[in-house]
Amino acid sequence: MNADGPPAAPDVQGMVAAEVERQVTALRQEMDAKIAEVRARTVDDAATIVVFSGDLDKAIAAFIMATGAAAAGLRTSMFFTFWGLCVLKKKGAASGPKGLLERAHALLSPASSLELGTSRMNYFGLGAVMLRKMMRDKQIVSLEELIGLARELDVKMIACTMSMDATGVAREELVDGLTYGGVATYMADAVRSRVTLFI
Amino acid sequence: MNADGPPAAPDVQGMVAAEVERQVTALRQEMDAKIAEVRARTVDDAATIVVFSGDLDKAIAAFIMATGAAAAGLRTSMFFTFWGLCVLKKKGAASGPKGLLERAHALLSPASSLELGTSRMNYFGLGAVMLRKMMRDKQIVSLEELIGLARELDVKMIACTMSMDATGVAREELVDGLTYGGVATYMADAVRSRVTLFI
Amino acid sequence: MNADGPPAAPDVQGMVAAEVERQVTALRQEMDAKIAEVRARTVDDAATIVVFSGDLDKAIAAFIMATGAAAAGLRTSMFFTFWGLCVLKKKGAASGPKGLLERAHALLSPASSLELGTSRMNYFGLGAVMLRKMMRDKQIVSLEELIGLARELDVKMIACTMSMDATGVAREELVDGLTYGGVATYMADAVRSRVTLFI
Repeated sequence: MNADGPPAAPDVQGMVAAEVERQVTALRQEMDAKIAEVRARTVDDAATIVVFSGDLDKAIAAFIMATGAAAAGLRTSMFFTFWGLCVLKKKGAASGPKGLLERAHALLSPASSLELGTSRMNYFGLGAVMLRKMMRDKQIVSLEELIGLARELDVKMIACTMSMDATGVAREELVDGLTYGGVATYMADAVRSRVTLFI
Repeated sequence: MNADGPPAAPDVQGMVAAEVERQVTALRQEMDAKIAEVRARTVDDAATIVVFSGDLDKAIAAFIMATGAAAAGLRTSMFFTFWGLCVLKKKGAASGPKGLLERAHALLSPASSLELGTSRMNYFGLGAVMLRKMMRDKQIVSLEELIGLARELDVKMIACTMSMDATGVAREELVDGLTYGGVATYMADAVRSRVTLFI
Repeated sequence: MNADGPPAAPDVQGMVAAEVERQVTALRQEMDAKIAEVRARTVDDAATIVVFSGDLDKAIAAFIMATGAAAAGLRTSMFFTFWGLCVLKKKGAASGPKGLLERAHALLSPASSLELGTSRMNYFGLGAVMLRKMMRDKQIVSLEELIGLARELDVKMIACTMSMDATGVAREELVDGLTYGGVATYMADAVRSRVTLFI
């Protein structure tokens, strides 16, 4: 019978194809669910840096890390909080009305990135002058150039609104192009990041 | 023959189903193994923070980060080591018998979270008073409230036993509800974490 | 017909096997692509530590973290930059010709790991003496022993070439067995890491 009939009748072929598809589709769904579960446990190509410090050397390190991460193809986000907020202060910006403590804090804090001191060997500002000169002599980009480079590389800069509130710093006192947010804004980026630093 | 016979005999159907299942099962096993291999390379929804610093401002930042991570749904763990151990000291706790160096260290270290100074602009404690007042004025939670909040959010607090040993600090001198462990305890949490900070 | 014929003719079996394999192979390819996409979003069993600080206590913490990570089975990499470079200075190494600023910097920086001060309570070096004595008394390994342990555990130590260039430090002034590189070298390790710390 097989000798003179077709090797397999078309309806058998159809039945086979349908049965295979049924089982293969079920397996696809099962595997897709498992892969989705694993995917939820992965990270994006992203980096986040908390800039807590208001020291010149640490600010430079933070921007070198941020621009390095962006150059490596990571979506990069910086969260400026506590003393780190000083790095974002606009030079010579008029400050809004402040209370006594807020004025004292403003007087004692660096007025812009140009007035940051170093974390050690500062000697009342001499360390910052030396560090800036050493970097200039070796044609290494300055902090202000690094900030510009970070902008060009689309590094997201978040000003911590809680720190602004606590120290009475208004948006007008900060440089342009910032994102404003709190720890929840930072954390939403951080949980998706490959690299998370606190500087 | 096909016209008057069944489209496919039941035994053919059975053979087909069995063959499909055989190959599909093999593929499922192969894929499950590959997915398990990838899953081993993922992270949990977890965060770990090393609290190395004994400065008030950094301790506040650490607890803001920790409670923020916990609020974002991350299982959060803090490892208090070196100066960070001071943050966990109980106010007015009698200390055990100590050697000369241990006593000198205890005298020179903050006796509890209430005596921490700031990392800059401390002016012999004035900075801490100012920071605490500025936060209170703006209704921002204090360090002690943040510690309480961290407890409520089930943040795990690990006291570094090596630091305790080195500085002669006994368990009785630290607040309640701590986990005790060394760098291995910390690392077991850190390797599974999305966010790893050193403060 | 079925009663006296074979349950399924060999050619039907062949057709079935071929059809199943066709669809199963297609599914395998589809799933392999999806798994590869997820795998690209995972991390290696690796840790990276930026050593920015030149303080004895922070250097000790960095090496405790690094050796702890390596002991936990992580491929571990340390990136020594800014003040952290001092930790790698060879004791008593003759330095190359330096400019005025470079000489001033060298004079004011610790000349080797043995001359690092502590980040707080240093009292012109007394803090470092105390910390080293407290650790010795408790049989806790010294910084130099930790560095040796890190080497034994194959911890990769990267000296930041930009920092070397900025401060005029030559390779001859640093200990042996280092890798030399910049932020891109660090970042290549960091993006694959489970744990990323900045100390």
